[in-house]
Amino acid sequence: MPAPLVTLTTDFGETSPYVAAVKGVLLTVNPDVRLLDLSHSIGPQDVRHAAFFLAGAVPYFPPGVIHVVVVDPGVGTERPILYVEVGGHRLLVPDNGCWTVLAEQLGGAAVVRRLEERRFWRSAVSATFHGRDIFAPVAGHLSLGVSPEELGPVVTEWVRHEAPRPVRTEAGWEGEVIFVDGFGNLISNLPGAEAAGGGTVWLGDRRVTRWVRTYGEAEPGTAVALVSSAGLVEVAVVGGSAANQLHAGVGARVAVVKRSPPPTFEV
Amino acid sequence: MPAPLVTLTTDFGETSPYVAAVKGVLLTVNPDVRLLDLSHSIGPQDVRHAAFFLAGAVPYFPPGVIHVVVVDPGVGTERPILYVEVGGHRLLVPDNGCWTVLAEQLGGAAVVRRLEERRFWRSAVSATFHGRDIFAPVAGHLSLGVSPEELGPVVTEWVRHEAPRPVRTEAGWEGEVIFVDGFGNLISNLPGAEAAGGGTVWLGDRRVTRWVRTYGEAEPGTAVALVSSAGLVEVAVVGGSAANQLHAGVGARVAVVKRSPPPTFEV
Amino acid sequence: MPAPLVTLTTDFGETSPYVAAVKGVLLTVNPDVRLLDLSHSIGPQDVRHAAFFLAGAVPYFPPGVIHVVVVDPGVGTERPILYVEVGGHRLLVPDNGCWTVLAEQLGGAAVVRRLEERRFWRSAVSATFHGRDIFAPVAGHLSLGVSPEELGPVVTEWVRHEAPRPVRTEAGWEGEVIFVDGFGNLISNLPGAEAAGGGTVWLGDRRVTRWVRTYGEAEPGTAVALVSSAGLVEVAVVGGSAANQLHAGVGARVAVVKRSPPPTFEV
Repeated sequence: MPAPLVTLTTDFGETSPYVAAVKGVLLTVNPDVRLLDLSHSIGPQDVRHAAFFLAGAVPYFPPGVIHVVVVDPGVGTERPILYVEVGGHRLLVPDNGCWTVLAEQLGGAAVVRRLEERRFWRSAVSATFHGRDIFAPVAGHLSLGVSPEELGPVVTEWVRHEAPRPVRTEAGWEGEVIFVDGFGNLISNLPGAEAAGGGTVWLGDRRVTRWVRTYGEAEPGTAVALVSSAGLVEVAVVGGSAANQLHAGVGARVAVVKRSPPPTFEV
Repeated sequence: MPAPLVTLTTDFGETSPYVAAVKGVLLTVNPDVRLLDLSHSIGPQDVRHAAFFLAGAVPYFPPGVIHVVVVDPGVGTERPILYVEVGGHRLLVPDNGCWTVLAEQLGGAAVVRRLEERRFWRSAVSATFHGRDIFAPVAGHLSLGVSPEELGPVVTEWVRHEAPRPVRTEAGWEGEVIFVDGFGNLISNLPGAEAAGGGTVWLGDRRVTRWVRTYGEAEPGTAVALVSSAGLVEVAVVGGSAANQLHAGVGARVAVVKRSPPPTFEV
Repeated sequence: MPAPLVTLTTDFGETSPYVAAVKGVLLTVNPDVRLLDLSHSIGPQDVRHAAFFLAGAVPYFPPGVIHVVVVDPGVGTERPILYVEVGGHRLLVPDNGCWTVLAEQLGGAAVVRRLEERRFWRSAVSATFHGRDIFAPVAGHLSLGVSPEELGPVVTEWVRHEAPRPVRTEAGWEGEVIFVDGFGNLISNLPGAEAAGGGTVWLGDRRVTRWVRTYGEAEPGTAVALVSSAGLVEVAVVGGSAANQLHAGVGARVAVVKRSPPPTFEV
């Protein structure tokens, strides 16, 4: 049987020793644990980014893996740390909503516990680094087989992240860019299955040239719309960066207009 | 016996959930697989960069390791995905030439198969994310011991990456910068064994001060030429970045002139 | 028993194949080794950064782990490569002081050996890439159980990194920023246990608004002082980057003044 697996997702970056300290504590508790980096490049304190990331990453993992998520602007305040089971996945997360978009997407009930049992924490807990002092040792103990019931009581209230919802309009769909990936592709919140196809795509007041199935179907430099690998309407520039070349980022308005006239966004 | 090892080289960056999704799918197929990141910082869609990277990385690995390479501007088009065995190394690559510089360097015949057997793929294959939908599950199955013969038929035609060749001139050697490393060192395509030594080195129209064996042999700030760890002529600035301080990058002309006069590059 | 663990800390970045080559050589020597990235984003040739990083990372690891550190501006010169045991931790480091801040912090005697036995090195050793040619194979052999005594003789002299020391003044404490983390927090060298508390904090000639226990105790945008997770006085901007918003970096003067008047820094 393979050793238990713990993944790490943080906003720590790689210049500081913070990620390494988390790994060291985990390995001190369970020298046999397998560690897997998902990302340490979540935007600093960017819960929205973390929420999008987890929704696009966690569903592909097998059940039982422990996902440690430390994007935690409220560290050291009264905000709880949660152990979450949803759709067979297990997460340790700050109670800031970073996991609720994932949970909605997975459907089904989440079992949520609030970490309270300090015997699974480091003996001294700092006010600013719960990744090292609480998340890491608790994940280590979970990977050793400690039962979640020992960590703390079930709770039924938690913070939810309210992702912006797309709007069905008379003319089609209106929404916004919710993520810019490493290629500069603009991922919107418009549902590909319903919004994609025959209509005209607008990015702000700019008309996107045409719908394609994949990038290679248009000439380099063309602005295209397609259905992203997560099933969302995406605006891309073939062989380039839509973010740079179309000067757009998170929050930019995106519309699919099945019938004219073009949409009028409030500015 | 250690668990089978799969390495990952992509241009995905670390802000998006794409690398994590690839890892999740691999672990779903084979929970025992060992995953190793080589780089997720290949330039977006930069096949040339991938080719240089693989030639400098793969030869150091033991045989049998499975190298998954997803730098794939043609994703979703008719471009094939290949399983390659060359010099004892195993790769899954898009058919865009990213592996052929490595193969030339290794010498010997490559056995190349085109992935066709969809039973080793995810059941739904997107048009834009074959890393998740084809590369990852196929690598997972290979790591479980599936025979390459099951993946698809042998092919004998593939895309080759034509790396720029250095030129032997009457006066010495002329070539160009083919890679800038993280220190800002300028790696040229001039062969160190033959081009290095007594001649004068020119970077464009700038004369590089002198040849050294290693950086610490000249004063900080000096522009030096040396033989890189890959055996190529390299221009560096001691204690600094040649790329920044000499304002040069990939494509900049480099010459070694054994005899005067200096080279005349076409501009 | 889990496979032996080797961690990697370098200034190589992730665009070049250097890290991958190190991993490949390690796995060639010991196919069973477990590799763990700590960081490849140490500043190029920045020994000070490496020293701070190791002091903040290594103490959290269990004993026995082998830490390979390649931040090595003197590569290829006469500078030795050292095998160090200190506080139960094992390191392979260039002799440039990158490990001595850690050792001071751990206390206790260090046993230090100079690598000399070339039978544990790659057969051809380049002048510029000892990470691949010496550090990696030696770490591989150590992970296989080779005794450190076989690597080379004990030495009693080595380079020490002199970190800037804080000064106790009549009015309080004076020191400087020694690290900027990924959030833009400014970590000083002032000892939190003694310097923090009732006094006024100055960052250069700017007065920091107030002391907090953790970031969430003040309004977003407020400049605050607190005790960092490493026990040092830290200046942060709540929900933002102190480095960007206060225009400060490594070397910026920090003072805690228990009594007026404010400090007068020499400019």
